[in-house]
Amino acid sequence: MWSISAVERSEENQIQATIDNKTKPQGSLGALEVIAKQVAMIQGAKLPKLKQPKFWVFAGDHGVAEESVSAFPQEVTAQMVANFCQGGAAINVFCRLNDISLSVVDAGVKGDVSGFPGVIDCSLGKGTNNFCVGPAMSIDTIELAFARSSSLLSQAAQSGTNIVGFGEMGIANTTSSAALIALLTDIPASYCVGRGTGIDADGLERKLEVIESVRDKYRGIDSPVEALATVGGFEIAMMVGAMLSAAEHKMVILVDGFIASAAALVAVKMVPEVKEYMVFCHASAESGHHYLLQELGVKPLLDLGLRLGEGTGAALAFPLVQSAVAFYNEMASFDSAGVSQ
Amino acid sequence: MWSISAVERSEENQIQATIDNKTKPQGSLGALEVIAKQVAMIQGAKLPKLKQPKFWVFAGDHGVAEESVSAFPQEVTAQMVANFCQGGAAINVFCRLNDISLSVVDAGVKGDVSGFPGVIDCSLGKGTNNFCVGPAMSIDTIELAFARSSSLLSQAAQSGTNIVGFGEMGIANTTSSAALIALLTDIPASYCVGRGTGIDADGLERKLEVIESVRDKYRGIDSPVEALATVGGFEIAMMVGAMLSAAEHKMVILVDGFIASAAALVAVKMVPEVKEYMVFCHASAESGHHYLLQELGVKPLLDLGLRLGEGTGAALAFPLVQSAVAFYNEMASFDSAGVSQ
Repeated sequence: MWSISAVERSEENQIQATIDNKTKPQGSLGALEVIAKQVAMIQGAKLPKLKQPKFWVFAGDHGVAEESVSAFPQEVTAQMVANFCQGGAAINVFCRLNDISLSVVDAGVKGDVSGFPGVIDCSLGKGTNNFCVGPAMSIDTIELAFARSSSLLSQAAQSGTNIVGFGEMGIANTTSSAALIALLTDIPASYCVGRGTGIDADGLERKLEVIESVRDKYRGIDSPVEALATVGGFEIAMMVGAMLSAAEHKMVILVDGFIASAAALVAVKMVPEVKEYMVFCHASAESGHHYLLQELGVKPLLDLGLRLGEGTGAALAFPLVQSAVAFYNEMASFDSAGVSQ
Repeated sequence: MWSISAVERSEENQIQATIDNKTKPQGSLGALEVIAKQVAMIQGAKLPKLKQPKFWVFAGDHGVAEESVSAFPQEVTAQMVANFCQGGAAINVFCRLNDISLSVVDAGVKGDVSGFPGVIDCSLGKGTNNFCVGPAMSIDTIELAFARSSSLLSQAAQSGTNIVGFGEMGIANTTSSAALIALLTDIPASYCVGRGTGIDADGLERKLEVIESVRDKYRGIDSPVEALATVGGFEIAMMVGAMLSAAEHKMVILVDGFIASAAALVAVKMVPEVKEYMVFCHASAESGHHYLLQELGVKPLLDLGLRLGEGTGAALAFPLVQSAVAFYNEMASFDSAGVSQ
């Protein structure tokens, strides 16, 4: 279904030589050198360029919110969609600052958000089913999510975008993400759950019980798509499809925090090559993220103790990716600058 | 001599309330919340603003380079000054990308750099004395360094700059910095030295011997100014003066990596209040930096494995400081956005 190719390796040595010949001790730009190489591998050795960066925030509600697993009431999902549309949320601020275009997508909010200015209607339903009772959604819904997210990404590709980021909003979506991780990895349930937006000790205990019961209930599911349908969320399904579609278009994918990384896990389990297009942007303060990043075998760029979601960590990391591409293109070489090696 | 006041604390509660009422879970913007508060404390609670960001790269040579403690020959200092003046170094690229004004200062390069376009002549000599033999410079020279750096900062303050960063270039200046740390703290000599620009195991051994002999030779020196004169560098002395002067002007000071942090150590030992104006920007891959940051009791924003100096880590962190100020000024509050708390 997805036609994602591994990045081109024929220019790898040339790209590394370009980096090593810049006027700096070899390796002294650390993680930026890794990113510069990755972007050049994706785009080609000559003058890689980040064009028309674009983010989407996908919003969706979760039936599992019934289990009292969040510090905030479910209405907040729709209220925050309004806030995104009015430009008052953190992700709006960070996108404006970095000249990133931002779209807000209704992936399946329970409340009515259709009248909010600019919101893109991709709604897959009025919130998922409570996965403590039965599957969150059907496989058909996943396919719809993939089709709709692919359509968004294709439009962006046509208008020249080659770097994208995905944020999310959905009360209880750390619980859905933890459940995905619990089904798709061997990470212990207690490592998968954290305090999300700030739930108290009792809430954390309930979250853990939910994850443990889900792991028992759905034992045996190991297909990433089936896991996504069973315990995922509408916004998470849209993110998975968006990531895979972005890789088809050879875009650089900025992966945000815990929930985005859970989506990335599903995407990587579906098509391993998608990981080559991903830049892991930050280590969330949400405790499960640490183990998930380990599972994915990646080290993120930032570690600022963020735990907000919305794509904020990805937007904050964007200038670092710009800096990586800029040093690759603009720094003098030892030869051109007449500096002794 | 320095008139540096502690930041104003009368608005602290108001500033914290502003941050806590933004549409996000409390504390969820992590380190950015700390920075937003710091900048608002420095500038006042109402609409803090970063104006005309300005960096200086101070270049100077070191007599201790005679001891073969660097992977690069001493000529590279002047060659890199030429590179800075031509816009081809990493710091040029990162400053351009972030609209940071950059000036190059001859603090005491051995080679002739007077003809390079734009270089500011603050030369304190043709390289310091080898501090394995005798003091690197005199106390009078330190005073001259402070006067000259204060003059640069006063000019910047007059033109409206309120956020600054300081980079350095100087072959062997990780050795000078390690010696400063060894004289001014109880950090073991072996923890103070690292591979700098990439010296081999033998070179590292020589560096360690230098630091150990210096600690023996100058035992008893505990005045920061005397330590600076004895084992410091011209560019480091300029940075110390620039940091203190910046704090006098109530500027936000972006502190770069190992060498800049050694300068910060001297400045903080001279006037502890200066630390309230400092944002520690990154954790260098230079091994001693970790211990120095611990000694200063700070956690830096970035940890990207950088070990280049020039102010590059500070320039890369600047967008994060911008983001912190932007969320403080621009995000909606729970009330204004109608979001449930």
